[in-house]
Amino acid sequence: MAGDENSALRSRRGTSYDVARRAGVSQSAVSRCFRPGASVAPATRARIIAAANELGYRPNAIAQGLITRRSNMVAVIISNLTNLYYPEVLAELTQRLSERGVRVLLFALKAESEIDDVLDQVWRYQVDGAIVAARLSPEQLAAFHDRGTALVLYNRESHEVPAASVSCEFAAGETMLVDGMVAAGCCRFAVIGGPADSAVGEARVNGAIERLGRAGFDDIPMERGDFSYDSGYRAAHRLLNAGPLDAIIAANDVMALGAMDAARHDFGLDIPEQLSVVGFDGVAPAQWRSYRLTTVRQPVQRMTAAAITMLFERIDDPDLGPERRLFSGDLIPGATARLA
Amino acid sequence: MAGDENSALRSRRGTSYDVARRAGVSQSAVSRCFRPGASVAPATRARIIAAANELGYRPNAIAQGLITRRSNMVAVIISNLTNLYYPEVLAELTQRLSERGVRVLLFALKAESEIDDVLDQVWRYQVDGAIVAARLSPEQLAAFHDRGTALVLYNRESHEVPAASVSCEFAAGETMLVDGMVAAGCCRFAVIGGPADSAVGEARVNGAIERLGRAGFDDIPMERGDFSYDSGYRAAHRLLNAGPLDAIIAANDVMALGAMDAARHDFGLDIPEQLSVVGFDGVAPAQWRSYRLTTVRQPVQRMTAAAITMLFERIDDPDLGPERRLFSGDLIPGATARLA
Repeated sequence: MAGDENSALRSRRGTSYDVARRAGVSQSAVSRCFRPGASVAPATRARIIAAANELGYRPNAIAQGLITRRSNMVAVIISNLTNLYYPEVLAELTQRLSERGVRVLLFALKAESEIDDVLDQVWRYQVDGAIVAARLSPEQLAAFHDRGTALVLYNRESHEVPAASVSCEFAAGETMLVDGMVAAGCCRFAVIGGPADSAVGEARVNGAIERLGRAGFDDIPMERGDFSYDSGYRAAHRLLNAGPLDAIIAANDVMALGAMDAARHDFGLDIPEQLSVVGFDGVAPAQWRSYRLTTVRQPVQRMTAAAITMLFERIDDPDLGPERRLFSGDLIPGATARLA
Repeated sequence: MAGDENSALRSRRGTSYDVARRAGVSQSAVSRCFRPGASVAPATRARIIAAANELGYRPNAIAQGLITRRSNMVAVIISNLTNLYYPEVLAELTQRLSERGVRVLLFALKAESEIDDVLDQVWRYQVDGAIVAARLSPEQLAAFHDRGTALVLYNRESHEVPAASVSCEFAAGETMLVDGMVAAGCCRFAVIGGPADSAVGEARVNGAIERLGRAGFDDIPMERGDFSYDSGYRAAHRLLNAGPLDAIIAANDVMALGAMDAARHDFGLDIPEQLSVVGFDGVAPAQWRSYRLTTVRQPVQRMTAAAITMLFERIDDPDLGPERRLFSGDLIPGATARLA
């Protein structure tokens, strides 16, 4: 009986052979029907689609990938996924790739040092490309090149081995904030940096310190955190215990929020009257009413769109040369810094 | 010259044939060497590994998957990734799966209604299983069963079509909070619910309302949000404009934080002296010093570990029956509710 045959076929996942038999066409017609751009007569296509729906058949993307040499998968490698900044980036990347029919193979690193093991997996899954928000060594960058796997660095740059990259100009953002606070009369500055092995953290901190140096402020005290709230909170304790300050510049928003809470709740300081605090990123919680942080927002939508465009250009043409795209952040005035 | 040959081979990604030739063994010996559990003499294995490393060869996981009928990929389907709760869940799932040599194919939904398109992709990539934190219809649940694709629901349950699920007992958590506030003398309660089509939100709200009913409090005013800070902030405005309250019960932490900020900054209320506010989830920002929210923390580590165990049991034995695992949340006393 047709009904029984239906359910028996479904439970073993209908194959292209089953669909061909049901539609009364050849197996190669079924393959063509599901291959983008291949020609099939409209009536035949309709019969095949109807048979495929009845049998619950879907073309096997993996097997198609072996034939077309496109897996239609892109690796997204992110260190520190619980950093509040990355979920927005990941959601944007996943949705934009999905609109192009490409799936995300996700790699979340606990530490940037895990990258070697991850790359081993990336090669094995033969992804079409990778968007990497983690530090790659020159050897690792060269491996992408040698294998012809398209690569775009996100919020990282590579100078020894040029690579395609999208990032936000830290220096420009820090300059706006530093100049504004100097003009408002702040003199005693301190910095909360990220881990010493974080390229992003170092770029931000160095941008701020360099700009302060030009304004005549040297020997800026610095404490390091790990980009977390608790580490910003503790760093602010160490800095404020060492002496009075006019301004704290944190390498990301979440540490700035920890520093604000330490200053307000434990040192009884009014922000921004007695202490200015500024961050960097533009994460959503920084604009909650209890904080309203003065910060520089990265244009995540434009940056993720650019990363994906650059990646597809390189999937289509593996010989395309390196390119750096640098976006300027938007100053969010907020309410935590005296700026003039 | 050997050097030139090396780089030529590398740039076209060495194949198992190249490795076999270089190591002086058969191609099938190379395949065996990279297949878990297959036997290869130690000296032969060493020669093959050395040749593979020289040539930059990695076995093709995709092709292996077609042979073993295991893709070693698991789909993780999450609606609303920017909800602060999910990044922690996703990071835990990704790292735990990675430890088992399994990759995450990520699907992030903007709306739960996108699920049909996503499932179409899930079938095409022939994942070994899926962990789903989104609402599935009975037909969609049946499709997993019919296709023999292992499925575990995360923070969702299915009653019409039984399925494996891991969730946190909302009722127990809400009961602790509601009973504590009633005992402390709160009388005028209000609720901030999630969207009406969110199963999780409805379960939490209904748990609270039912418990309040048992304590003699009926006709509890409710406003709905979308789990975001802004929606909690606006819902609190509507509730507090309608009349004085003793307590607001929010369906998640982030809406509770929005409600706190509205109550404190716009209505000048002391929390918890004049208003108690409670949430649910246990996200990190809820414990920042400016909030210290009274809430129920979901045991994310135990829940994700359980989800993965259940998933692998079902990948190994597709006929294994449904099972519901319910974890109790931990009360975090915080500082935003009067509890007795």
